Amino acid sequence: MGRWEPNARGRLAKAALELYSERGFEQTTVAEIARRAGLTERTFFRHYADKREVLFAGSGELQELFVRAVADAPKAAAPIDAMAVGLDAVSQLFADRRDFARARHAVIMANAELQERELIKLASMAAALADALRGRGVTEPAASLTAEAGVAVFKVGFERWIMAAEERGMERLMRESLAELKAVTAGR
Amino acid sequence: MGRWEPNARGRLAKAALELYSERGFEQTTVAEIARRAGLTERTFFRHYADKREVLFAGSGELQELFVRAVADAPKAAAPIDAMAVGLDAVSQLFADRRDFARARHAVIMANAELQERELIKLASMAAALADALRGRGVTEPAASLTAEAGVAVFKVGFERWIMAAEERGMERLMRESLAELKAVTAGR
Repeated sequence: MGRWEPNARGRLAKAALELYSERGFEQTTVAEIARRAGLTERTFFRHYADKREVLFAGSGELQELFVRAVADAPKAAAPIDAMAVGLDAVSQLFADRRDFARARHAVIMANAELQERELIKLASMAAALADALRGRGVTEPAASLTAEAGVAVFKVGFERWIMAAEERGMERLMRESLAELKAVTAGR
Repeated sequence: MGRWEPNARGRLAKAALELYSERGFEQTTVAEIARRAGLTERTFFRHYADKREVLFAGSGELQELFVRAVADAPKAAAPIDAMAVGLDAVSQLFADRRDFARARHAVIMANAELQERELIKLASMAAALADALRGRGVTEPAASLTAEAGVAVFKVGFERWIMAAEERGMERLMRESLAELKAVTAGR
């Protein structure tokens, strides 16, 4: 009890995702996750509030990194270029997590409640990014529209990145998606 | 019983929104809504499945109109211009509903569950719009990005339209928001 387990958090996340994928999110218990990871339920609850949090623990980190990168972009950068800096930064965060991201996405798409949670996280990200842009002196509605555009690029780029057989890196796909957004809004 | 009541649906919606505004969504019962409207609970349930549906019954109509307008836009129109046709069409739908929209928005912002429902409706709208664009021969990721851009403009334009003291029409605000999105994505 209270014993330190090497990488308990990562082992729990891996075990949880395996079980959610095999038998569904609803059908998996915390006891089963702990057992699969070779740990106790007590250890599980030291790392995660509940079994849903295993899937969303990374969202806070993602938002923080995205927002900080936008806020810290070169002062002279146009709002959309600050957003591009943010998209590059989050791409680094995901670089070696494609398999986890794919499995996680499949689990979320199979469960309405988890999909809602994912939408809330994206809406919260858009609000935080608009805030960061206003902090850079961008006025409304430009700040909100740029933030929404950034989240749209992130969402579409992310969905391409996790497609089966897709091997191109996230940074490249995000840049292509941003370029494509610029093209479509320009009427091409 | 079964008696036809003139404009029962509208009276119920008005009564429900008044009560949600006065005492909160959670604290309002269907019995109270019916009483305020001078109707029976039975009549309420002939028009709405539950008290939440009073707030979201219009979402289906909105999405259908938006999608149809995009699908039916002139064949030669670029994707973003088809989206502009859709935004004009939905603006007509809202024209004389600003007070209702303002009150509804305040109720939704005060309740987490209703906010989630609203996000789901917007996500569903984006998916349906992307589908309509693919039906026009637009390829991916352009279709999804244009649809997300359209929903972003709708969201930001709508929030401006319901701001206190805002008197400009929705069509104008939607057009301005679209122009602003074009400007920000062009790096201005």
